[in-house]
Amino acid sequence: MNKTAIIGAGSWGTALAVTLAENCPNVLLWSRRKELCRTINETRVNQDYLPGVTIPSNVTLTADLEEAVQQKDMLALVVPSHTVRDMARQIAPYTKKETIVISCAKGLEEKTYQRMTQILQEELPHCHAAVLSGPNHAEEVGRNIPSATVVSAQKRQVAEAAQDLFMTRFLRVYTNPDVVGVELGGALKNIIALGAGIADGLGFGDNTIAALMTRGISEIARLGIAMGADPLTFAGLSGIGDLMVTCTSRHSRNRSLGVELGKGKKLSEVLAGMHMVAEGVRTTRTAWELAQQYGVEMPITNQAYNVLFEEKDPRAAVVDLMRRGRTHETEDIVSDKYETW
Amino acid sequence: MNKTAIIGAGSWGTALAVTLAENCPNVLLWSRRKELCRTINETRVNQDYLPGVTIPSNVTLTADLEEAVQQKDMLALVVPSHTVRDMARQIAPYTKKETIVISCAKGLEEKTYQRMTQILQEELPHCHAAVLSGPNHAEEVGRNIPSATVVSAQKRQVAEAAQDLFMTRFLRVYTNPDVVGVELGGALKNIIALGAGIADGLGFGDNTIAALMTRGISEIARLGIAMGADPLTFAGLSGIGDLMVTCTSRHSRNRSLGVELGKGKKLSEVLAGMHMVAEGVRTTRTAWELAQQYGVEMPITNQAYNVLFEEKDPRAAVVDLMRRGRTHETEDIVSDKYETW
Repeated sequence: MNKTAIIGAGSWGTALAVTLAENCPNVLLWSRRKELCRTINETRVNQDYLPGVTIPSNVTLTADLEEAVQQKDMLALVVPSHTVRDMARQIAPYTKKETIVISCAKGLEEKTYQRMTQILQEELPHCHAAVLSGPNHAEEVGRNIPSATVVSAQKRQVAEAAQDLFMTRFLRVYTNPDVVGVELGGALKNIIALGAGIADGLGFGDNTIAALMTRGISEIARLGIAMGADPLTFAGLSGIGDLMVTCTSRHSRNRSLGVELGKGKKLSEVLAGMHMVAEGVRTTRTAWELAQQYGVEMPITNQAYNVLFEEKDPRAAVVDLMRRGRTHETEDIVSDKYETW
Repeated sequence: MNKTAIIGAGSWGTALAVTLAENCPNVLLWSRRKELCRTINETRVNQDYLPGVTIPSNVTLTADLEEAVQQKDMLALVVPSHTVRDMARQIAPYTKKETIVISCAKGLEEKTYQRMTQILQEELPHCHAAVLSGPNHAEEVGRNIPSATVVSAQKRQVAEAAQDLFMTRFLRVYTNPDVVGVELGGALKNIIALGAGIADGLGFGDNTIAALMTRGISEIARLGIAMGADPLTFAGLSGIGDLMVTCTSRHSRNRSLGVELGKGKKLSEVLAGMHMVAEGVRTTRTAWELAQQYGVEMPITNQAYNVLFEEKDPRAAVVDLMRRGRTHETEDIVSDKYETW
């Protein structure tokens, strides 16, 4: 298990290559950009995506996808979620049997609503799909700041192999058998980050944000359970943990978008001023559609949808959230104990 | 259910009186200090504890405990946790049968390790004990910033009566049947706040704090389950929700104490400079003792104990936390699903 490569040399891919280099004699890091590969191999710094972090000499950049993929025991795909299927197809001819392919992308495929490991299983049926997800700013992992993350796979030995590869003195890796829950937490968190931004833009406080995050992960768990996940996963690092770093990060595009909406701008105005679409806009529609499909109540997602796509006034959305009927905190999640209450 | 009083006119008691005044024609707010009662009744502001918030005219301050308690349908005890037993004894002669007495204090009794509602049941067996707990800065609730909280009681109708009393346009109240879990979350969070402060003092990052909070609530849940709580409660407002506002608050004494320890000061030095003992110091010892008693693994509590009482270097404590054996994220909580994994 020591022939490894990271596909994608953005900030997270680079940080994971630096981590992997602690445990593996040689790590290949693939980027499409030949010039970037050459520069990093010479300067040992990825100035564009992870400045200030020295990349160890046993990490080698390559722009040759076949070289990166062939004969590897483990590949980590660290590319944007909407490119995962295409990338999986590209690497399929070069992957050997039983290779562990770890998705490090967070998202659901548009239209099919498939999770990233579902895509990997379809496109790379001869490999073992796994996911790595958690509250991890690449800048901190790259700088050896103590962090924790989760790997999940259908087979325990696959998850444990991935755990062994990424576990260092600075990154603590937990395993979790609930692949569905681990992937959904990362994919849906941006709705709540957007909501936290809206609350902030409206001038609300720490109480509001804490309530949004806690009730937000609760409704994500509700959808997750309907889709086959374990509720406790959402209380873990890939659920509420990831949500906390996302909602408190000043770098989150979703949060910033929410702040502008909370201050009274329309979605079209805010989007016109951004050069990238905030993932949370798309995710809110996806989750809203999934909630209909699975018949699950998602009040925060509903109000976010109304603000984004129905031009609802954010303050009215908050009022409607507060005014719903009386609720029991975990009734929708575990209803049996209430019968005897 | 409209004869109500709040016992204790600190910042949280005052904010709850303001909230209650939305739903009740008359609210009595008791303070031991006659002068404070007179001033607030005249000026309509609690300048010492909740400045800037206007107290509605249907809230009346009184220093007469008998007047405050007699004939009431609902009493909220908003006094420090170490004074709850004494206060319950003082009000016992005046409370009528079936009065709902809501504990708003967070803590466990020293030596007996009893929860606040256990104390109330002992001292006021003719009343119904309940608890109110959640991610609630009094300053924000008092200013009508949207917030959410939890009430819990052994009987559903008791919890729902308390829910109706405190639910307003700005405070959303959830019920939860798990009294043990709701009380333990609030009582034990300060250990993790202290740990978050230490991590901050050591110069660590958002990843570290998110990992500490998530794994911290997980070990609190582990102890809670051994004591009879429901694991999902710790994923709710009174668990991770309260932990989030505590760990991110700049006003938390526990967090500040941790920061000083992380920067290298000894506990005795830091305590010498504080005029109040940070609750987390006492709580860490209590939780450490409970963990031994119940045979539960609490790695973060253990390391906090070592730093506080064994002069362990905080950096070495973090290293030891990171270096433990490989772990499965929820294995200690729900082990059965791992057998088939």
